[in-house]
Amino acid sequence: MKLITAVIKPFKLEEVRSALTDLGLQGMTVTEVKGYGRQKGHTEIYRGAEYAVSFLPKIKIEVVVPGAQVDKALAAIQRAAKTGQIGDGKIFVSPIEHTVRIRTGESDDDAL
Amino acid sequence: MKLITAVIKPFKLEEVRSALTDLGLQGMTVTEVKGYGRQKGHTEIYRGAEYAVSFLPKIKIEVVVPGAQVDKALAAIQRAAKTGQIGDGKIFVSPIEHTVRIRTGESDDDAL
Amino acid sequence: MKLITAVIKPFKLEEVRSALTDLGLQGMTVTEVKGYGRQKGHTEIYRGAEYAVSFLPKIKIEVVVPGAQVDKALAAIQRAAKTGQIGDGKIFVSPIEHTVRIRTGESDDDAL
Ligand SMILES: Nc1ncnc2c1ncn2[C@@H]1O[C@H](COP(=O)(O)OP(=O)(O)OP(=O)(O)O)[C@@H](O)[C@H]1O
Ligand SMILES: Nc1ncnc2c1ncn2[C@@H]1O[C@H](COP(=O)(O)OP(=O)(O)OP(=O)(O)O)[C@@H](O)[C@H]1O
Ligand SMILES: Nc1ncnc2c1ncn2[C@@H]1O[C@H](COP(=O)(O)OP(=O)(O)OP(=O)(O)O)[C@@H](O)[C@H]1O
Ligand SMILES: [Mg+2]
Ligand SMILES: [Mg+2]
Ligand SMILES: [Mg+2]
Repeated sequence: MKLITAVIKPFKLEEVRSALTDLGLQGMTVTEVKGYGRQKGHTEIYRGAEYAVSFLPKIKIEVVVPGAQVDKALAAIQRAAKTGQIGDGKIFVSPIEHTVRIRTGESDDDAL
Repeated sequence: MKLITAVIKPFKLEEVRSALTDLGLQGMTVTEVKGYGRQKGHTEIYRGAEYAVSFLPKIKIEVVVPGAQVDKALAAIQRAAKTGQIGDGKIFVSPIEHTVRIRTGESDDDAL
Repeated sequence: MKLITAVIKPFKLEEVRSALTDLGLQGMTVTEVKGYGRQKGHTEIYRGAEYAVSFLPKIKIEVVVPGAQVDKALAAIQRAAKTGQIGDGKIFVSPIEHTVRIRTGESDDDAL
């Protein structure tokens, strides 16, 4: 299992969510965050408004997926989140060693 | 060391916290998140109110624990967070390679 | 690549950010969280106010860095975040197996 963490533009959440649902992925956790990338301190256009400040609002999506679905999920997120403008975001993949579904006690791939 | 991440029903936070404290675990980080699992788009009863929307408020708990305490911590979280109804949540375990306690400079298990 | 997660006092964010920028690190994600460490349930002085409650507001910083920069980044965060008082925070290092920069499709170290 892998944890895919994507930090994206907030207005792209529904598109990314729908792309993951189309792959049959059945769970997601979302957090409101703020961040900056390579243009830090510089101006980034964000939903029509201009921000000179360094931190911009972003959405962090976390999806734990079976190893076999990582590549498809990465491609789907990248496709759905991309506008071609700066600030489109980053995706990070990290290992998950164990998963539990609390209600049923199922574990690992069965828990996803 | 392992990072245990649990996404639970918000009203279960105090119960989970108390169960971890009873094990002698001395630290926790909590984030307000929203998410969905297998019933996505369907109705889930949440603290008496009915939501047809896809994202429900959840609490994400992060606890870094020594390797020797992972199993006990997982069992305690599962027991404390479980209601038996859908939406009880998920627990994920991932590796932590290094820890620093900022004030003292202690590291790894000594820093927890 | 490694994910460095630091949970710090909120008023230390700008100092930590500036220390990381000085190292040439070009991205960061920030989340408002709450937490407790070893003094849980006890009183901690926080920006002049006294809290008897268990959870205190903290800032979680996440920075993904090339392996070669982990040690410098850890030292910089520790130096910048430290006040010498309780509650200065914790730093955790965990593995990142893959990174994508969404706009360009670059991956791994090139994506940071
Ligand atoms: N190295 C990093 N570590 C942690 N979070 C990062 C990192 N780089 C970027 N982020 C997060 O991703 C968000 C979006 O980054 P962004 O897309 O601006 O990256 P970028 O490298 O500047 O690419 P672009 O040139 O396309 O803007 C940031 O606001 C931040 O939250
Ligand atoms: N695969 C996943 N990746 C990331 N977060 C997840 C995943 N699955 C669930 N979550 C998080 O856990 C929360 C609770 O999930 P939930 O308990 O509804 O899972 P479930 O599989 O639907 O189990 P149940 O049938 O008991 O409801 C979600 O709101 C979401 O935040
Ligand atoms: N084991 C842990 N797992 C997850 N988060 C932790 C853990 N320990 C501490 N934290 C987070 O770090 C924050 C700061 O912790 P804190 O600096 O108080 O640690 P401490 O061990 O009590 O050190 P000190 O004695 O210097 O206060 C907490 O509010 C919590 O968010
Ligand atoms: Mg950018
Ligand atoms: Mg569910
Ligand atoms: Mg403390």
